[in-house]
Amino acid sequence: MSDLPKSVSLREVGPRDGLQNELPVPTDAKVRLLDMLSQTGLKRIEAVSFVHPRAIPQMADADEVWSQAKHVDGIRYSALVPNLKGTERALAAGFRELEIVVSASDTHNRKNINRSTAESLADIEAVAARVHEAGATLEVIISTSFGCPYEGEIPVSRVLDVATHAVRSGADRLAFGDTTGVGTPSRVAALVDGVRSAHPDVPVLMHFHNTRGTALANLLTAMQHGITEFDASVGGLGGCPYAPGASGNVATEEVVHMLEDMGIDTGVDLDALLEVAAYAQEIVGHELPSGVLKAGPRTRTVAA
Amino acid sequence: MSDLPKSVSLREVGPRDGLQNELPVPTDAKVRLLDMLSQTGLKRIEAVSFVHPRAIPQMADADEVWSQAKHVDGIRYSALVPNLKGTERALAAGFRELEIVVSASDTHNRKNINRSTAESLADIEAVAARVHEAGATLEVIISTSFGCPYEGEIPVSRVLDVATHAVRSGADRLAFGDTTGVGTPSRVAALVDGVRSAHPDVPVLMHFHNTRGTALANLLTAMQHGITEFDASVGGLGGCPYAPGASGNVATEEVVHMLEDMGIDTGVDLDALLEVAAYAQEIVGHELPSGVLKAGPRTRTVAA
Repeated sequence: MSDLPKSVSLREVGPRDGLQNELPVPTDAKVRLLDMLSQTGLKRIEAVSFVHPRAIPQMADADEVWSQAKHVDGIRYSALVPNLKGTERALAAGFRELEIVVSASDTHNRKNINRSTAESLADIEAVAARVHEAGATLEVIISTSFGCPYEGEIPVSRVLDVATHAVRSGADRLAFGDTTGVGTPSRVAALVDGVRSAHPDVPVLMHFHNTRGTALANLLTAMQHGITEFDASVGGLGGCPYAPGASGNVATEEVVHMLEDMGIDTGVDLDALLEVAAYAQEIVGHELPSGVLKAGPRTRTVAA
Repeated sequence: MSDLPKSVSLREVGPRDGLQNELPVPTDAKVRLLDMLSQTGLKRIEAVSFVHPRAIPQMADADEVWSQAKHVDGIRYSALVPNLKGTERALAAGFRELEIVVSASDTHNRKNINRSTAESLADIEAVAARVHEAGATLEVIISTSFGCPYEGEIPVSRVLDVATHAVRSGADRLAFGDTTGVGTPSRVAALVDGVRSAHPDVPVLMHFHNTRGTALANLLTAMQHGITEFDASVGGLGGCPYAPGASGNVATEEVVHMLEDMGIDTGVDLDALLEVAAYAQEIVGHELPSGVLKAGPRTRTVAA
């Protein structure tokens, strides 16, 4: 197959995005999950979020989790922040890669963080200034980039407008989230082409959900259109608690399994990752949606 | 996106391949499932198989099912046959499109139908002769085309050898099955390119499983390499009872949902299909794996 990258950069989001959408798990389980992930070959891990404990009780122990977890050299750990207060906490905790979310859909933004998209973009400008002052970087994650559970269609032009505002507000990187798994390959191609044309020098990451089975087809399409950075969640942990019907971050092991078989280097040890997925399933106490976790990798044969 | 077809031809395999891998359901439920499918816009339906009831008790009532189901003009109904005896039953029942399976993996073929691949290919020659004598057509389905649960890797050259033998034995059409869901896009591209090069005039259909999340990525790749015929199973019914870890024919509604959103015509009414998927789930009595059945189509929004 032509036009495919030789390697991709995966960011593991299970410890934050994943666990944020599960019932709270004990601090030591979060630490162990992080430590196990740090041994798989993953080079980027979204570790925690510094949100208000009343809003997201699952992340109330972010400081303890991060102070107890091993920080492995060569791994880029990141934290999600909702505002300036969270930014101060993340910077004080030592994070140098921060992320902040804005929704391309005004209705979803209001439901998610109780303000309009325009208000969020104004907040982002202040957060970016503080982050840069501290010598750190800020990624703006644009959620509902492929459609909104409330508004339905979100035109590519709207998503690109939000992206351009985010870059002007100081975003060092952009991420586009398929928050409720409504993306399809043609939508991915259109958005990726638009973003790369409008912001050729800004690193772009895609965050796909597998809610309707399209995650790996979307990821393949994004690669064919030049994207080499993807989020994925071990075991398929998590989703979005404010988005009805949103289940299923694409499972990291499904991504690694497909890409490595295609000769695209992820740097990840699939067997080690599957052990982490089994552990993730154990701590949340219910079956996770990952097919590779259930069925095993393609190389696992049985006696005839 | 370039290089995509304007339309695809889907064959619904839930009534046969799907139900064959579930606990037996009543005859009237099978008839109703077929009749509902015949009203969705699907133009090809694999209706039943004429196998020995001791081997596959789920299909013991194939004659009754087929005689009671409505035969809608313009729909191509097909039947699976294992041998000459089944062929006579299928022809007597009025089928004009028959299918027969051979595995690219010798071990899988022995486990599945208790003979070597070479023996199966010899049987196929006799079946094809009888089918053609009756003025009907025969499709040869080559299972384990992307790997075998017992042998592991199956080289493309081996699959192509079996395909060429099948064509020489009288196959009018070829289908390639990812029996245990081990296919990935690069493997699909390699096999499709090889088959189209070796047999440019033979219609080719791909049968994907979603066991490890790759079904729609594989389908997208197959389309990009010129394939326009696919199997799918309503709700994601079925798999292969003889293949450990094999779950998940790709769900017809996941295929229709993605393709129609991409502007690729399937001819299928998604809402009608989702009603059939809900009925399929009801008659088998357990949750089916279809994400579109669970979450609804992307166009279904909720009140803010």
